[in-house]
Amino acid sequence: MITSTANPRVKQVVQWRTKAGERRKDGVFLAEGFKMFAEAPLEWVKEIYLSARAESRVDDPYIRKKLEQIGYETVSDEVMDKMADTQTPQGIMTVLRRPEHHLEEILKGPSGLYLVLEDLQDPGNLGTILRTAEGAGVTGVILSRGTADLYNPKTVRATMGSIYRVPFLYAEDLIEVLGKMKSAGITIYAAHLEGKRDYTACSFTGPTAFLIGNEGNGLSEECAREADHYLRIPMEGKLESLNAAVAAALLVYEAKRQRNL
Amino acid sequence: MITSTANPRVKQVVQWRTKAGERRKDGVFLAEGFKMFAEAPLEWVKEIYLSARAESRVDDPYIRKKLEQIGYETVSDEVMDKMADTQTPQGIMTVLRRPEHHLEEILKGPSGLYLVLEDLQDPGNLGTILRTAEGAGVTGVILSRGTADLYNPKTVRATMGSIYRVPFLYAEDLIEVLGKMKSAGITIYAAHLEGKRDYTACSFTGPTAFLIGNEGNGLSEECAREADHYLRIPMEGKLESLNAAVAAALLVYEAKRQRNL
Repeated sequence: MITSTANPRVKQVVQWRTKAGERRKDGVFLAEGFKMFAEAPLEWVKEIYLSARAESRVDDPYIRKKLEQIGYETVSDEVMDKMADTQTPQGIMTVLRRPEHHLEEILKGPSGLYLVLEDLQDPGNLGTILRTAEGAGVTGVILSRGTADLYNPKTVRATMGSIYRVPFLYAEDLIEVLGKMKSAGITIYAAHLEGKRDYTACSFTGPTAFLIGNEGNGLSEECAREADHYLRIPMEGKLESLNAAVAAALLVYEAKRQRNL
Repeated sequence: MITSTANPRVKQVVQWRTKAGERRKDGVFLAEGFKMFAEAPLEWVKEIYLSARAESRVDDPYIRKKLEQIGYETVSDEVMDKMADTQTPQGIMTVLRRPEHHLEEILKGPSGLYLVLEDLQDPGNLGTILRTAEGAGVTGVILSRGTADLYNPKTVRATMGSIYRVPFLYAEDLIEVLGKMKSAGITIYAAHLEGKRDYTACSFTGPTAFLIGNEGNGLSEECAREADHYLRIPMEGKLESLNAAVAAALLVYEAKRQRNL
């Protein structure tokens, strides 16, 4: 059992939790809690830390078996408090290797549905978008380089496990990726203030991608120019825009609705 | 100019910012930033604090005129940093009296659209829901007593000004309010795991209310029992639920879509 917060492995986990660069360098991310452990793909798991208190209380046979199958390290409750991102940790921290999704793989298939996020900054929004994407049956999510880190612990939690299941990719050059998407026959729609067509009046039954811009500034001109069509989510009242995760949800669920008709 | 963070008025603002009970006792709330000031109804504004730096930079004639019309107090940048909830404050803090919306007023009208929130806890979610409600043309939002404080500074910001425009009400007794809604001819739908009908297959063109439950636990049985119908937002993958603000958005925007057909 690790009981010292000065233990090098504990220090390493804290580095991974707090520093995006450390996570990237080592190709890992952290997932807190039993739900995130239970849903983690076996082949992604690198290390498991379980607090003494949590260890004595694991009664779910599936969790118990998975823990024993992979092997875990017990740590004192004090050490878990140090490692964890949450105020009242459940007592389990999983270290995972990052998945490698490839653009060609994401883009193949007959009637793909995609979200393309440009420079989104809010970790909660980002996690919520991945979660919603799974619900709507999105094929893949493309993120611009300037988008917040999907492996931020708060974002990982907000995905509710979708990070394990929805293919996603940070694009080095978003404009180039949009070009490849168009070559693959995908129609690109931008939610845009200048959009004239109501989103419920467009057909999303063919291969479709939705461009979602930054929370404060919307889409860059360079990126918006790549869209085949601008669309509008109508708003009553004096509102200037909707929350980015809400806009993304309305679009992918409208596509889902049309595809189920 | 107020330059001391020990000034009683500064201390009072800090109390209002940090303590829900203090805000409630005095019947006020705070709104930070120029957008929130610009959109604030004149008759709600009680006090305005402007930092010295911000004062020297106000060039919008509408803002300038509104400031002079109501009158404001200049404070040092250090005092503004103390008052503000954000890390890099814009330099304006508005103290407002709380609106008083009445249930009878909210419920009258021919084809109302309502959101009823039971015990939502996330301040960001709550603000996003009010913002989305304005966009979808929601008539009013009813909140259970156990719902988080809509006047929390983070929530107020997340409403993007909708708090000024969407009528809302904390219900002392939610079950009683639901009864009054039914008596007023409003059909009540609950987003529920046991729902069998797809939400896009229900008609929301008549008077409609949607019940949204707590982020972790969903609706209480007592409350769900009051619903006329359960409905289901379909989900692909292995997801157990959607984010509460996303679920609320899909429902009210589906109602809006149907009403515009």
